[in-house]
Amino acid sequence: MIMRLDRLQAEIPPPSDPDPNGASIVQELLGGKFGEMSTFMNYTFQSFNFRNRAGAQPFYDLVASIAAEEFGHIELVSTAINTMLTGAAKAKPKKGALKGVKDAPNTQQFLAGGASALVQDSMGKPWNGDYVNATGDLIGDLTWNFFLETGARNNKLKVYEMVDHPVARALTGYLLVRGGVHQVAYARALENLTGADMMKLFPSPRIPTDKIPECQPHIKRGEHLKLYRWSPDDFKQLAAVFNGPHPETGEELEVAEELHPEGSVAHDLPAQPAVFSPGPEPGEVEEISARLRKEAGI
Amino acid sequence: MIMRLDRLQAEIPPPSDPDPNGASIVQELLGGKFGEMSTFMNYTFQSFNFRNRAGAQPFYDLVASIAAEEFGHIELVSTAINTMLTGAAKAKPKKGALKGVKDAPNTQQFLAGGASALVQDSMGKPWNGDYVNATGDLIGDLTWNFFLETGARNNKLKVYEMVDHPVARALTGYLLVRGGVHQVAYARALENLTGADMMKLFPSPRIPTDKIPECQPHIKRGEHLKLYRWSPDDFKQLAAVFNGPHPETGEELEVAEELHPEGSVAHDLPAQPAVFSPGPEPGEVEEISARLRKEAGI
Amino acid sequence: MIMRLDRLQAEIPPPSDPDPNGASIVQELLGGKFGEMSTFMNYTFQSFNFRNRAGAQPFYDLVASIAAEEFGHIELVSTAINTMLTGAAKAKPKKGALKGVKDAPNTQQFLAGGASALVQDSMGKPWNGDYVNATGDLIGDLTWNFFLETGARNNKLKVYEMVDHPVARALTGYLLVRGGVHQVAYARALENLTGADMMKLFPSPRIPTDKIPECQPHIKRGEHLKLYRWSPDDFKQLAAVFNGPHPETGEELEVAEELHPEGSVAHDLPAQPAVFSPGPEPGEVEEISARLRKEAGI
Amino acid sequence: MIMRLDRLQAEIPPPSDPDPNGASIVQELLGGKFGEMSTFMNYTFQSFNFRNRAGAQPFYDLVASIAAEEFGHIELVSTAINTMLTGAAKAKPKKGALKGVKDAPNTQQFLAGGASALVQDSMGKPWNGDYVNATGDLIGDLTWNFFLETGARNNKLKVYEMVDHPVARALTGYLLVRGGVHQVAYARALENLTGADMMKLFPSPRIPTDKIPECQPHIKRGEHLKLYRWSPDDFKQLAAVFNGPHPETGEELEVAEELHPEGSVAHDLPAQPAVFSPGPEPGEVEEISARLRKEAGI
Amino acid sequence: MIMRLDRLQAEIPPPSDPDPNGASIVQELLGGKFGEMSTFMNYTFQSFNFRNRAGAQPFYDLVASIAAEEFGHIELVSTAINTMLTGAAKAKPKKGALKGVKDAPNTQQFLAGGASALVQDSMGKPWNGDYVNATGDLIGDLTWNFFLETGARNNKLKVYEMVDHPVARALTGYLLVRGGVHQVAYARALENLTGADMMKLFPSPRIPTDKIPECQPHIKRGEHLKLYRWSPDDFKQLAAVFNGPHPETGEELEVAEELHPEGSVAHDLPAQPAVFSPGPEPGEVEEISARLRKEAGI
Amino acid sequence: MIMRLDRLQAEIPPPSDPDPNGASIVQELLGGKFGEMSTFMNYTFQSFNFRNRAGAQPFYDLVASIAAEEFGHIELVSTAINTMLTGAAKAKPKKGALKGVKDAPNTQQFLAGGASALVQDSMGKPWNGDYVNATGDLIGDLTWNFFLETGARNNKLKVYEMVDHPVARALTGYLLVRGGVHQVAYARALENLTGADMMKLFPSPRIPTDKIPECQPHIKRGEHLKLYRWSPDDFKQLAAVFNGPHPETGEELEVAEELHPEGSVAHDLPAQPAVFSPGPEPGEVEEISARLRKEAGI
Repeated sequence: MIMRLDRLQAEIPPPSDPDPNGASIVQELLGGKFGEMSTFMNYTFQSFNFRNRAGAQPFYDLVASIAAEEFGHIELVSTAINTMLTGAAKAKPKKGALKGVKDAPNTQQFLAGGASALVQDSMGKPWNGDYVNATGDLIGDLTWNFFLETGARNNKLKVYEMVDHPVARALTGYLLVRGGVHQVAYARALENLTGADMMKLFPSPRIPTDKIPECQPHIKRGEHLKLYRWSPDDFKQLAAVFNGPHPETGEELEVAEELHPEGSVAHDLPAQPAVFSPGPEPGEVEEISARLRKEAGI
Repeated sequence: MIMRLDRLQAEIPPPSDPDPNGASIVQELLGGKFGEMSTFMNYTFQSFNFRNRAGAQPFYDLVASIAAEEFGHIELVSTAINTMLTGAAKAKPKKGALKGVKDAPNTQQFLAGGASALVQDSMGKPWNGDYVNATGDLIGDLTWNFFLETGARNNKLKVYEMVDHPVARALTGYLLVRGGVHQVAYARALENLTGADMMKLFPSPRIPTDKIPECQPHIKRGEHLKLYRWSPDDFKQLAAVFNGPHPETGEELEVAEELHPEGSVAHDLPAQPAVFSPGPEPGEVEEISARLRKEAGI
Repeated sequence: MIMRLDRLQAEIPPPSDPDPNGASIVQELLGGKFGEMSTFMNYTFQSFNFRNRAGAQPFYDLVASIAAEEFGHIELVSTAINTMLTGAAKAKPKKGALKGVKDAPNTQQFLAGGASALVQDSMGKPWNGDYVNATGDLIGDLTWNFFLETGARNNKLKVYEMVDHPVARALTGYLLVRGGVHQVAYARALENLTGADMMKLFPSPRIPTDKIPECQPHIKRGEHLKLYRWSPDDFKQLAAVFNGPHPETGEELEVAEELHPEGSVAHDLPAQPAVFSPGPEPGEVEEISARLRKEAGI
Repeated sequence: MIMRLDRLQAEIPPPSDPDPNGASIVQELLGGKFGEMSTFMNYTFQSFNFRNRAGAQPFYDLVASIAAEEFGHIELVSTAINTMLTGAAKAKPKKGALKGVKDAPNTQQFLAGGASALVQDSMGKPWNGDYVNATGDLIGDLTWNFFLETGARNNKLKVYEMVDHPVARALTGYLLVRGGVHQVAYARALENLTGADMMKLFPSPRIPTDKIPECQPHIKRGEHLKLYRWSPDDFKQLAAVFNGPHPETGEELEVAEELHPEGSVAHDLPAQPAVFSPGPEPGEVEEISARLRKEAGI
Repeated sequence: MIMRLDRLQAEIPPPSDPDPNGASIVQELLGGKFGEMSTFMNYTFQSFNFRNRAGAQPFYDLVASIAAEEFGHIELVSTAINTMLTGAAKAKPKKGALKGVKDAPNTQQFLAGGASALVQDSMGKPWNGDYVNATGDLIGDLTWNFFLETGARNNKLKVYEMVDHPVARALTGYLLVRGGVHQVAYARALENLTGADMMKLFPSPRIPTDKIPECQPHIKRGEHLKLYRWSPDDFKQLAAVFNGPHPETGEELEVAEELHPEGSVAHDLPAQPAVFSPGPEPGEVEEISARLRKEAGI
Repeated sequence: MIMRLDRLQAEIPPPSDPDPNGASIVQELLGGKFGEMSTFMNYTFQSFNFRNRAGAQPFYDLVASIAAEEFGHIELVSTAINTMLTGAAKAKPKKGALKGVKDAPNTQQFLAGGASALVQDSMGKPWNGDYVNATGDLIGDLTWNFFLETGARNNKLKVYEMVDHPVARALTGYLLVRGGVHQVAYARALENLTGADMMKLFPSPRIPTDKIPECQPHIKRGEHLKLYRWSPDDFKQLAAVFNGPHPETGEELEVAEELHPEGSVAHDLPAQPAVFSPGPEPGEVEEISARLRKEAGI
């Protein structure tokens, strides 16, 4: 089971100019074959389906713990999309209030969503369970995980170059660093399990994160070197797998002492009445909420 | 973001007689349109996409918090399936080791999985992102959530009757109780928001859980009345929405003091070498794990 | 627009022994690529999208009118499936009431349906809009329609041989005759439009309906020769296309004087409480209905 | 079975400026999850699968009859799309005749269609049978129907605001009024069945149709208050369910005396030779049709 | 089995101005329902599944041989797309290198591909195996093949008109001629098998290729009249089916003496480092390749 | 382009006892995510989309050439399925001729096919283009190819154990050996490109083919060590990549002198009239074929 903290793993800038085209492309990082729904669900189901956990505890702990981090990644990508769509629709529901988004490439962000993220890729195709490989064969699954992170990194680099909105840049800057750690973690696990030396595959694709400005703040904080446990008491044996030098920098990999990054409180994105979010008359919801709080003594 | 606890929300019995037919049917509760992937992802994305959270905090807290519980439900259903499939394949990978599962209705539980759960429904169709409605319109989303729980309850009742394996019964007994709480929670939220009186819709379908033996232990512990917050510090305002009498029993709804149920440690399901989980030679993984632990001083 | 008559185009026998396996196969005739959803929707959308109707009225009338008959075919196939599933579940919702259908090949007929038809094919794959070709190019669309009826006839013949339940036999006996008329109609339309002689393609597949006992009552009534107009006042010009000799028997094709076959009233299929249809306590619905009728003076 | 009337339920304006972008968005109302294919097919299959009809006749009649109206809605939406696409392609099939639609968001309206409607949503995803819920559980299905109409209303309102083409406005003006009646009908049915009071959920989303100019002509004619039976002789007991005051206006709900609205004859949309509809040389089809009519004495 | 020749069946012009919009439309000819993946896979699987080949050798040879040609067609369409996308992304992977393709209608050509073809249609929907009909019924399959080529020709004509890029024009000019031969071949096969006279269906759609400039070079070389055997020693009996006059020109159909067209060497499309193809640092791959060649003495 | 040889790469035994259950499972090796359609299409599209081929010729040659072999694999798997289904239906199309396959897990092998292979996986889900990764990034694509072969090997091993029909055993025995070569080839390519040492990942899954009796004849012929070029004149530089010791046996990898294996002529599978293949009256097709041959002087 999980506990949820109402914080983002990293800071996403507040809304600025809306960018529906960019937001439509960022969907690839959410619901694409190599998006964060895929990383989250692959590792989650691999952990659910893991057999003989006691016998293979270091590997179980690694996969189960990284799964937890990926929840934060679907949260971050969704937040980025929602932020980039804020302000795209006019203020009030009335004739033509949505005329400005008629040419938006992903019409369903407004029709099916409330200027918000969908569980789709950049072409509007829904994420589906076939994107999950959880065969139970540890070597096989780790090989897939390594490749999945490779594909995810490819997509993050391309979205970084394609979308210049500051929110997309902040997002991909962070995800590239953290995805890099996961890529290393699975490669190390494979090495530990088989003896194969995979470190020369890094970086893949062949662009080091130290060339990307938006990665630097995270690298400076050492986020490219450490795994969190994401658990008060569990997953401690991942340290038996995740260690040794980073393949690109030579620095030592480490398990963080803190359970999770401090993160930041999300900006409270403003209502978008024209897409009925949280309703065409947001004031109505506010009043009711205030009354309910009062009645409940909160 | 989340923290993960390596415990199940409820106890799932250990492996007994394998039941591939039953396990294939239980998939409906995982990857079906009204399965737990749907409840988990609907509430999760509704919480990500929630606008003006401060203004509508009690409702945001309710949805965000229930989302966290649903992670535990996909975990429980997966565990049930994995347990029911344990022992279905013969002990060793060799000619015919899998002959016994040739007639299994879901062949991919063995071919794509390691005698394990898939992100599919009972007919082998993958779960997909179209099953998520997160429009941002609070009244609309809550109406959907109420119906989603109704459909989920329908499916749980039917799986309960269709599959008599003790694991399936334990699973559905628990989920019916907790799903019932969520059904009430969304109905209450709608009432608080609109004034509509929806309590006479309960139970829907019209079978009270007090007729179901496997529900009784959970009802005795009051699990049919309370919401957990699933968070150390957040989601406290859900108490402003979740209150009043239970529509079936008249007892008072309450927010639990403990953050989450104590739950239980999962049975460590044994290796199934014939499906290569965690490999055709499990001893190999065990030895390596032992060595790694030793090297890491754990 | 349409008016609906609460009658079936042909008689479907009442429930006898339930046959979930057969009912699962009959789904191919409903939601398969060559099932009746496909014929209904292809002709319906071709009629909606028809341009220059006045200039091509005989062809428009033909397509639009046959579309109307196909509604009756999805109704017949659904009725057959529902009849074949009646009695498959035990009488009462209680532990194990559905145990008997645990091995049913289409579990969702019981989980997602109420022992009832789904918009799926025989493998549980949902019908989808890609099965529709409505290009607007009259020669192209008629060529497709001819092939679509060929594929449909292939499937009906095979289901006839595969499923020996009397309901399936009655269904396919009727559909083979009526589908044959549509196959001829589209071939005649093509001939009239291009001069190509397609009559030697009949029968396709090469099994004449006069070898099939269940077709004979319908052939005796001349149902293999006539098109109905399915409309009080419209579609009269189809007679300009649908004429000449039947390719297999040499008899003259004709437009029926009656607007539609007399048909028959459907058997009122009994409640199946174990699948909650129309609820786990059917008496509850009956009482309410009686009261409402009384209050409304009906 | 059905009879078909070659008339539209409401008037759709004739072609004016083509609007491929708008026509691509209107597809959501046809093939989207909450589009008219969904309402049509949900109620149609619920009526096919309805058990114990005699015992629950008022409810059967309600669902079966509304299903018939929805056929007219897929007809209206398709007509609107076809009208908005008329003139988008140049007059003659020749090099570059289709260059003008190269940037159309839905390329398949021209490639797979003849400047015409597809069985898809606004992102080009085909409608599929999974959008149908026909569980047989009356309370469950009515709850879903109420939500389905809520989602449909949400989409209609948004399309109204997004697309300012007069055809789209006329379409959504009409559909909002009629969809509102269905939303009320299902809520009333639920109330009658359970005693729950759902009227305060109206309007949902919270925009009354009396604020929308294009709804007014229909409201003036009382179209917001009445259900038609859509049948010469059947479905008379729906009056036992559909009665009482309208939740927004307080006026009395009623069953219309006329079987269906008078409606209007569709504009005969002109040939579009550049997309081969009804062929690259429309004159050819006209001449043949004239000859066939003459030969048939029509 | 096959042998592969590293040549294109026809010449595709070298890269000129990139045209992502056009390349997105050309996808319909690759992965659309009537695209070349469909023709290739339909005939391939029909040949695999062909029963009693000795007894029906002329027909088997025809289908099996045309299948081989279709491989060359998926190669040509892919090459055209890749050529049209060359240069669309800036030279180097760096911030904004892909900004220029942010508005490309098919974002995945850059995100999932390397400025390259995908196994999708023009709306981004993946090709799937449901597009294959291989029933084994010879008359049925040939009827379908004739229609499939009709649909393919419809799409090629429309893409020809919609996309004026010289590469798209060269591609469709060639494919129209060769597709026309296949359309004739399947019609002739049907005639030979049934006696039906289908020649008056040509051309379908009703635009003769002699009106299309880009078809002329191929017609002059007689490419509209001949089938190749595409095999050193096999498929010789196709001559028993493919003969007689061409339905449009009256010229005699013939089996070519050469096994396959001479074709041409593909232009070596330049690296596109900004989409990491064949990597962000193409020089790296070149050096390694040179070294490997040297070490291997090549 | 390709030339086609009407021979199988390896021998598939003639029909013996039909095995519809087994044939349904073998579909996973054809249309599954890790089936041969996936290997064929992945490498084919990677070769089509390969940029700067001259600069990276050894790698291009490797991928393009292996693609050609994979065509032979979809042919082998289809042949195996068709063989296993031969005789499953009774001899003649008549009432009940197909009754014996009513319980076949893949009903569409008989309804949509003619007792024949479909482009589907073992659960009846169609293969789709999303299973193809052809990003153009050479390191990324080779990593994927290595994993794809790993997944394919996993599936082949499991099908080997699950299905004891001699045809399935012969099939998987051969494919395991050849798939192993491809797995090595891609690992070697990665090593050559990056310096990473991946040889210790073999075998993956951890079952050496020398333990599998049906692999031995092929291993004895050295089929586990060599790549064919599959081309009269091209793809010669693959030798620069494919060399060095085999990771499991230490024997030297080699490029075969012969262009392709000699293979064998397929058994001519007998007509199955009950599924209309090649028609319900096979004699009819035979006579026509004989006449056509005679007329053509063949």
